[in-house]
Amino acid sequence: YSQRKSCWYEEEIEENLRWCFALNSILHTGATQFQDIQLLDTKPFGKALVIDGKLQSAEIDEFIYHESLVHPALLHHPNPKTIFVMGGGEGSTARELLRHKTVDKVVMCDIDEEVVEFCKSYLAANSEAFCDPRLELIINDARAELEKREDKYDVIIGDLADPLEGGPCYQLYTKTFYELTVKPKLMQGGIFVTQAGPAGVFSHTEVFTCIFNTLKQVFKYVVPYSAHIPSYADIWGWVMASDYPITLSPDELDLRMKQRINGENRYLDGKTFVSASTLSKAVRKSLDVETHVYTEGAARFIYGHGHGSTHKNDHA
Amino acid sequence: YSQRKSCWYEEEIEENLRWCFALNSILHTGATQFQDIQLLDTKPFGKALVIDGKLQSAEIDEFIYHESLVHPALLHHPNPKTIFVMGGGEGSTARELLRHKTVDKVVMCDIDEEVVEFCKSYLAANSEAFCDPRLELIINDARAELEKREDKYDVIIGDLADPLEGGPCYQLYTKTFYELTVKPKLMQGGIFVTQAGPAGVFSHTEVFTCIFNTLKQVFKYVVPYSAHIPSYADIWGWVMASDYPITLSPDELDLRMKQRINGENRYLDGKTFVSASTLSKAVRKSLDVETHVYTEGAARFIYGHGHGSTHKNDHA
Amino acid sequence: YSQRKSCWYEEEIEENLRWCFALNSILHTGATQFQDIQLLDTKPFGKALVIDGKLQSAEIDEFIYHESLVHPALLHHPNPKTIFVMGGGEGSTARELLRHKTVDKVVMCDIDEEVVEFCKSYLAANSEAFCDPRLELIINDARAELEKREDKYDVIIGDLADPLEGGPCYQLYTKTFYELTVKPKLMQGGIFVTQAGPAGVFSHTEVFTCIFNTLKQVFKYVVPYSAHIPSYADIWGWVMASDYPITLSPDELDLRMKQRINGENRYLDGKTFVSASTLSKAVRKSLDVETHVYTEGAARFIYGHGHGSTHKNDHA
Amino acid sequence: YSQRKSCWYEEEIEENLRWCFALNSILHTGATQFQDIQLLDTKPFGKALVIDGKLQSAEIDEFIYHESLVHPALLHHPNPKTIFVMGGGEGSTARELLRHKTVDKVVMCDIDEEVVEFCKSYLAANSEAFCDPRLELIINDARAELEKREDKYDVIIGDLADPLEGGPCYQLYTKTFYELTVKPKLMQGGIFVTQAGPAGVFSHTEVFTCIFNTLKQVFKYVVPYSAHIPSYADIWGWVMASDYPITLSPDELDLRMKQRINGENRYLDGKTFVSASTLSKAVRKSLDVETHVYTEGAARFIYGHGHGSTHKNDHA
Repeated sequence: YSQRKSCWYEEEIEENLRWCFALNSILHTGATQFQDIQLLDTKPFGKALVIDGKLQSAEIDEFIYHESLVHPALLHHPNPKTIFVMGGGEGSTARELLRHKTVDKVVMCDIDEEVVEFCKSYLAANSEAFCDPRLELIINDARAELEKREDKYDVIIGDLADPLEGGPCYQLYTKTFYELTVKPKLMQGGIFVTQAGPAGVFSHTEVFTCIFNTLKQVFKYVVPYSAHIPSYADIWGWVMASDYPITLSPDELDLRMKQRINGENRYLDGKTFVSASTLSKAVRKSLDVETHVYTEGAARFIYGHGHGSTHKNDHA
Repeated sequence: YSQRKSCWYEEEIEENLRWCFALNSILHTGATQFQDIQLLDTKPFGKALVIDGKLQSAEIDEFIYHESLVHPALLHHPNPKTIFVMGGGEGSTARELLRHKTVDKVVMCDIDEEVVEFCKSYLAANSEAFCDPRLELIINDARAELEKREDKYDVIIGDLADPLEGGPCYQLYTKTFYELTVKPKLMQGGIFVTQAGPAGVFSHTEVFTCIFNTLKQVFKYVVPYSAHIPSYADIWGWVMASDYPITLSPDELDLRMKQRINGENRYLDGKTFVSASTLSKAVRKSLDVETHVYTEGAARFIYGHGHGSTHKNDHA
Repeated sequence: YSQRKSCWYEEEIEENLRWCFALNSILHTGATQFQDIQLLDTKPFGKALVIDGKLQSAEIDEFIYHESLVHPALLHHPNPKTIFVMGGGEGSTARELLRHKTVDKVVMCDIDEEVVEFCKSYLAANSEAFCDPRLELIINDARAELEKREDKYDVIIGDLADPLEGGPCYQLYTKTFYELTVKPKLMQGGIFVTQAGPAGVFSHTEVFTCIFNTLKQVFKYVVPYSAHIPSYADIWGWVMASDYPITLSPDELDLRMKQRINGENRYLDGKTFVSASTLSKAVRKSLDVETHVYTEGAARFIYGHGHGSTHKNDHA
Repeated sequence: YSQRKSCWYEEEIEENLRWCFALNSILHTGATQFQDIQLLDTKPFGKALVIDGKLQSAEIDEFIYHESLVHPALLHHPNPKTIFVMGGGEGSTARELLRHKTVDKVVMCDIDEEVVEFCKSYLAANSEAFCDPRLELIINDARAELEKREDKYDVIIGDLADPLEGGPCYQLYTKTFYELTVKPKLMQGGIFVTQAGPAGVFSHTEVFTCIFNTLKQVFKYVVPYSAHIPSYADIWGWVMASDYPITLSPDELDLRMKQRINGENRYLDGKTFVSASTLSKAVRKSLDVETHVYTEGAARFIYGHGHGSTHKNDHA
C-alpha cells in the first residue's frame, strides 16, 4: 500500500498546464538580490533548483541538459583550451567542461553571487568543479565582462535565461551582441553554443527558431539540436554556431569522447548527437521559414511570449 | 489580464508526478462494459480522450502517435494492401492507414463496441475513416479474431494497452502470441508494428525494452523508435518487426510518402524517422542488455511496474 | 473501488489556501457585461454558481445562506409586506421572501441582466419564484433605483458583493448610503439586513466588524449573526439594523415561522437563531473594539483586504 | 506583487473535496510504530501536525479544539482535581487542563510513544505542560490502563481518533466501554467528555449523532456542542456526559473561568458555550432521531463512512 502524497511542488508550465512533483522536503527558500531561489527535494526528480518559480535543474536529469550544452561544441572543436561561460552559476556546466582534458581554463561569469554561493554549498555533484584550479569564477554582467577582457576563447557558452523581451538576458541573444561582442572574442576555429529554449513540436516557435535565425545572420555554420528533458516535460533546444564547419561522424565523436573526456557520458554519444541534431519535420520547417532576428532596436514584445519558457534565470 | 484557471483535469502520470490541463468543458463522462471513458475539452491540448483515468489521445498531438505507429511499417513494406489492427477503436490508426493508396483493406478489431461508437460520434477527424468502404470494423478479442481468420496480412498493427501483467492486453505481447498467432498471419514480406509504451531516458525500462526483446526472439529484424508526445509529457516508443530487412534511406522514405500517401504528414518524414529510430545512448544500452521475454507462463509481476504507462486501454 | 477523481474546480479562498471540488461537468461558462460566470456540477456540493472565479452559491447548501439572510429580518418585523432587495439576481433571496404569507411585493434590483437571465434558465429551485406575480424584477444600479423610487419598504435587503474598496459594491456599504438612501426608504418599524462577509474566528475582521460598526452609526439597534456554510469553507455573517428593537425569544420566532412561512425551513429555527446571534468571544471582542466606518471620502484601501471574501458579485 | 505559491499541502477531506495549504517548509516526515507523522510549516495555519495524511492540529487554531474539549467539562464540575486523558499525545489537552488551579493530577495515556516524544520536541506551546509535575504520562492502551488502575477521576477525557469501525479507537466509543470501563472510574459528580467528530450541517451524521446516542444509553445527562475550526474546514463536535446535571448559566461559567483558570481563554467563554451547545435545527433533528448505538458485537461497517473524519489518530 502506498499512501497518497500530500506535499507537492506545482509549476505552471503555461497558463493552462501544470506539472507537479511530490515533495520529500523543502531544503531552502530564499531571495537573492536578483531572484527568488528554492531548493526542493522532490520524489520524482531528486533535488530541484527552482528560480523565480521555474524549475532550473533537477538532480536526476540535469546531466541531459548539461552534457548537451557542453560536449557537442567542445568535441567539434579541434583542441578547446579556453572557455567562457555566460551564466552557469549552478556549476554543472563548469563540471562538464572540466571533464575535458584539453581544457586549461574556464571563465564562468554569473551575475548573482548568492545563487553561485548557494549552489556551491548545496549541490554536492558540482563541489569538485567549484574547487578546480582551472575555474575562474567571476561575478559580473556577462556582456560587460566579455567586452572588458582582452582574451579570446576557443568556446563561448551561453547558459542563460531565455531571450524574453524585457527579461534580464534578452540583450545577450541579439544579433548585435553576437556580432560585436561574442564573435570577436572567439579564437580562430572557435565555437559558440547557447541553450535555446523549448524545442518541442509546438514549443519550438517560442524562442528556438529565432535564436537559430539570429545566429545564422552572424555565423557561417549554425547547428540546432535538441533533447527531451523529463523534468521539464518538454524537448529542449541548443544552437551551436561557428565560422568553421561543424561536422563530425558519430564514430569521430565517439572517438574524441574517449580520448578527451574523463569519465563516461550518461546521455550523449555520437549516435545520440546524430539523433539530437536531426530535427523533426515540423521543427525543420519552422527553422526554414523563420525570419525574425533578435535586435536591440526592434525588440518585438510578444505578450506572454515565453511564459513558462524561462529556462535559465542566471542573469549573466 | 488573464484570469487564473479554475477547472482542471489532473492525471497522475506516476504516483509522484501529476500533469494537469485547464478545462474548457467536460464533453462526456461514461462507462462501457470494459472501461470508463471521458471526453474532455482541454485548453492546452484540445479534445482529449481519457480512458480509465489515463489520457489516450489529445486532439492537437495525436497525429504524432498515429503517424509514428502507422507510416514506418507501411512505407518499409514494398506494397502494403491488407492490414490488421488490434485495438485502435479510436479510429485514428485507421485514418492514417486509409491515407495509403496501396491499401485495399483494413481490418480493425477492438473489443469495446461502446468506445468505438463513442469515438465515431465524437471525433470528427476520424469520421471519414469510419465510413471508408475499405475499413472492416470487428468487435472481438484481437487474438481470437486473428486466430479465427484464414487471411494473412501485409501489416499487422498493435494499438493496444501496455503489457501490464494482469492487464487486459498482456497476452497480446507474449512470445507465444507473436510466434503462434501474429507471425503465421503475416504474408511474405509482412511487417508487424506495435506501440511499445514510454521510451524516455528513464521510462523506457518499464515495457519498451521487454517488448523489443520479446520481438527479437521471434523476428529476424526488429526496429525500435520513439517520439516526444507533448500531451503525454514523455517520449513514446514503437517497435517494428519482420523477417525481411527493414531499411530505407530518408530519401527513399520521402519518395514513398510522396507516391503512396494522400495528403501530407504533419510529423513524420524521412529525416524524422532517422532521428526517431536513432535512440539515445541510455536507451540503446538498455535494449542491448534486456533479457526479459514476455511469456504467458513466466509473467513476472512487478509491483506498480507500469503505473501510469497504460497508453491504450482498448482491450482488443 | 472508487476511482481517483480527475476533474476539479479549484478556488483560491486566500492566496495561501485552496478549496477544490471534484467535477461532474461544466454546465456553462460565459461572460456578461459585468462579470464572468460559470455553472458547474460539482460532486460534493451539487450545482455551483461561480462568478469571477468565486463560488457564489452551491445547490446543496445555499439554503443556509438565504434562510439566514431573509427570515430573521422578516420574522422580527411585525408585518412585512414590501421588500426591496439590492442584488439577489440568483433568485434564491426572492424565493425565500416569497414564502412569507405577509409579503405583497418584492422589488429585486440587480445590475446584471444576463446573470439574472442565466439563473432564471438554469436554477430550477428558483423558477417558481421568478414567476411569482409579487416579484418585480428591475435591472438597475440599486442605489439609483432606491433613490428614484418614492416607495418605502418594510424590509430592505443587501444581497451584494463585499465592500471591497474599489469593488463594485463598496458605496452600498457606506455610512452615507445607509443614512441618506436606505434609512429614509424604510417604513416605520422597518428593518435593514445585509450579508456581511466572512465571520470566522479569524476572517471576521475582513469586513464583518466594519459593516457592523458602520450600521451602528446609523441605526439604533444592530444585530450581527453568523452561520457555517460548508461550501464556503467558512462561517458567514449578516447584520440586521433598525431603529426599533429587534428581540424575540426562540419560541416567538418559531411561532411566527409556523404562522407566516409556507413550507418548513431546513436550517433556521428559533434556537438556531439564538446560536447564530450569540457570537463567540473573539468575534464579540472585535465587534466591541472596531472603530472603522465605511465612508465614501475616507475609504481606506487595504491591500488584499478582502481577497477571497467577495461573496456576492451581483453589482446592484 | 505576490508570487504564486508553488509548494502545497493537500488533504482529501472527502474523496471529492480537497483542502490545500501553501507550505513554508516540511519540518519533519517520519513513521512511528503506529502511524505516519508529518510536521509542516503552512502559510495559512502555521505549524501543522499531520498524522496518516490527516491534519490533526494547526498552530493558529488548535486552541479552539482544545479549549472546547477541556474547559466545559472542568467548569461544569464543582471541583475537578484528577483527570484522565485517553490519547492526547500532542500535549495541548494537558496544557489546557493544567491551566485549572483545581487540578492536582492529570494522567495522560497515549499508545504512541514516538508521537508523544515528537510533540514534546517540536511543539513549543506545550513544552511547559510536558514538564508540569502534575502530569503523569503513560504509554499504554487507554482501555487497559483505565481498567488496570484503581483510581477514579473527576473528569475523563477522550481525545482519540474517530470511531471508525475497524479503526484503532472504535472500541473506545462503545456502549460497553462507557458502561463497564469509563463510568466506574468516574468519581461522584464526575464528567466524561469526548471529541465527537465533524458536526457540520451535513457531516454531523458521520459519527457525532452516534456518539451522542451511545452516551445517552449510559449517562443520565448528555450535552453535545460544536465549534467551527478553520483549519478543518468544518464544524467540530464534542459530547459531555454525566449522571449529574450539567447546567450553568453563561455568567456562572464566566465566573468559574475567572476563578479557576490561569490566563485567559482565547476562544471559550460563557456566551460562546451557550452558542456552541445550542445546535442548529438540522443537527438537533438528527440527534433526536438517531437510534444507532456503538457496540462491539454489532459494529456496522459503513464503507468509507468516516473517510476524512479521522480527527485524532492517537491510538489510546
